[in-house]
Amino acid sequence: MAEFFNVLPPAEARAVWLAQVAHRAGVELIAPLEALGRVTAQPLLSPEALPAFARSTVDGYAVRAADTFGASDSLPAYLTVAGEVPMGQAASVAVAKGQAVLIHTGGMIPPGADAVVMVEHTQLFGDGEIEVLRPVAPGENVLQVGEDVVMGAEVLPAGHRIQPQDIGALLALGLASEIAVVRRPRVCLFSSGDELVPPSTRDLKPGQIRDINSGTIASLCLQAGAAPEIRGILPDEAEAFYDALAAALPDADLLVVTAGSSVSVRDMTARTINRLGAPGVLVHGVAVRP
Amino acid sequence: MAEFFNVLPPAEARAVWLAQVAHRAGVELIAPLEALGRVTAQPLLSPEALPAFARSTVDGYAVRAADTFGASDSLPAYLTVAGEVPMGQAASVAVAKGQAVLIHTGGMIPPGADAVVMVEHTQLFGDGEIEVLRPVAPGENVLQVGEDVVMGAEVLPAGHRIQPQDIGALLALGLASEIAVVRRPRVCLFSSGDELVPPSTRDLKPGQIRDINSGTIASLCLQAGAAPEIRGILPDEAEAFYDALAAALPDADLLVVTAGSSVSVRDMTARTINRLGAPGVLVHGVAVRP
Repeated sequence: MAEFFNVLPPAEARAVWLAQVAHRAGVELIAPLEALGRVTAQPLLSPEALPAFARSTVDGYAVRAADTFGASDSLPAYLTVAGEVPMGQAASVAVAKGQAVLIHTGGMIPPGADAVVMVEHTQLFGDGEIEVLRPVAPGENVLQVGEDVVMGAEVLPAGHRIQPQDIGALLALGLASEIAVVRRPRVCLFSSGDELVPPSTRDLKPGQIRDINSGTIASLCLQAGAAPEIRGILPDEAEAFYDALAAALPDADLLVVTAGSSVSVRDMTARTINRLGAPGVLVHGVAVRP
Repeated sequence: MAEFFNVLPPAEARAVWLAQVAHRAGVELIAPLEALGRVTAQPLLSPEALPAFARSTVDGYAVRAADTFGASDSLPAYLTVAGEVPMGQAASVAVAKGQAVLIHTGGMIPPGADAVVMVEHTQLFGDGEIEVLRPVAPGENVLQVGEDVVMGAEVLPAGHRIQPQDIGALLALGLASEIAVVRRPRVCLFSSGDELVPPSTRDLKPGQIRDINSGTIASLCLQAGAAPEIRGILPDEAEAFYDALAAALPDADLLVVTAGSSVSVRDMTARTINRLGAPGVLVHGVAVRP
């Protein structure tokens, strides 16, 4: 009886395969806005604290919290409005005891203040005065310096696949021009078999089938972040097989050949990989050259 | 006390929003190989049966199953090899009683045969004869006509996001040149606030923060299959706000404005949407114009 293949369970096959796939794709610098789905090549550290200044998380009034202790609807705290924090500028007006300064969400906490009362918990009272109807604790509604990210902190580790929120974090820290990511691995795809015709073939002759592995695997590569290249259909002929694979080898991080990996005399993938002298793994009908 | 917003739980807000987003993006024709992640605009029906001919799922010998009944290691069935099915061509040799025809995986089942014996269950025996060591049932190791897809079957429904395996199915059926997909919705993005500066700004002045919403939401749009366009930062100034949104309206399927949606006098998103006369939804600080 002909010999059966020794096959591995998928998890083991995957481990064998991964052990042969070295990190050989190299690094390139790209803008974070182009980096969705790419993989960081090194840890990204924060060059600054975020936020860089204490800022309000609400629309309201910057106050000294102690001035509001005990305030309620029936017994409001009365504060004098000493000015307004302009957006995008330093707070110039300080908050003294008994005073409040109008502030907007994201505005810089002015000197002297340690909390912000939500505008919804205040009421204008006559000229330049407000009633505060709820007390605030020190620090309430204030985002402190470095509360999101401290300077030097690792924002993203190496080997991390970049998500939309990661891009936001990089932009927030001014890492907007370029970051180091792993180059997309170049994957050259071949399908093999005399029965195969290009998928655009309209009328099949008896015995012919369309090559779908190239397109399907190319799509899987795209989804996984690789750069696939469909190199076409290999005939069941040893020299053509060898020539096509040898020609692709210098350009590729990975050659993937589908079919041609069984025990028939027409199955040339394993033999061709051996002849190429490149490390190769035969996986479930898919031969991969890392 | 100032009035609080009436806010909706996320699921309700999403329903309100989706009810306003009509399917207005239109349809375009693209090649299946470009269609990963795109959404089908109409159901795709199979123009043919798959497979179009009965084919072998293994390397082995096409036989009449009845000729192998009772075969075992100790009492093999002896069959005469009548020829070979060439790959990619019609099977020309018929299988008569007592005969076998060499066949490869994917090869067309020859007339007369109704099963395939795996090569691993056979042994060459002298000249042009084989021993069959295991019986096969009729239909064993044969993929019948239309077993994957019958002609006219719905391969993909309308509104389906196309995955790698879907692309394989389309190619298999010869739907390789173009398919109808929903055009990517064009989303114009604005951030608003005098405190905002472009994320490329290196040294922030006190009170300034970098615009990260545009880049983050653009990345979320890309991930969701939309075509985002970052239109920049709007100042807290009603006319500039209106002019920028009005200019973007003809180009866009969606305008997204972040911030400017609270109760402060500087919050101009809702007012601007009303003034534009376009349907708009204020969502959690994100105003969307479907």
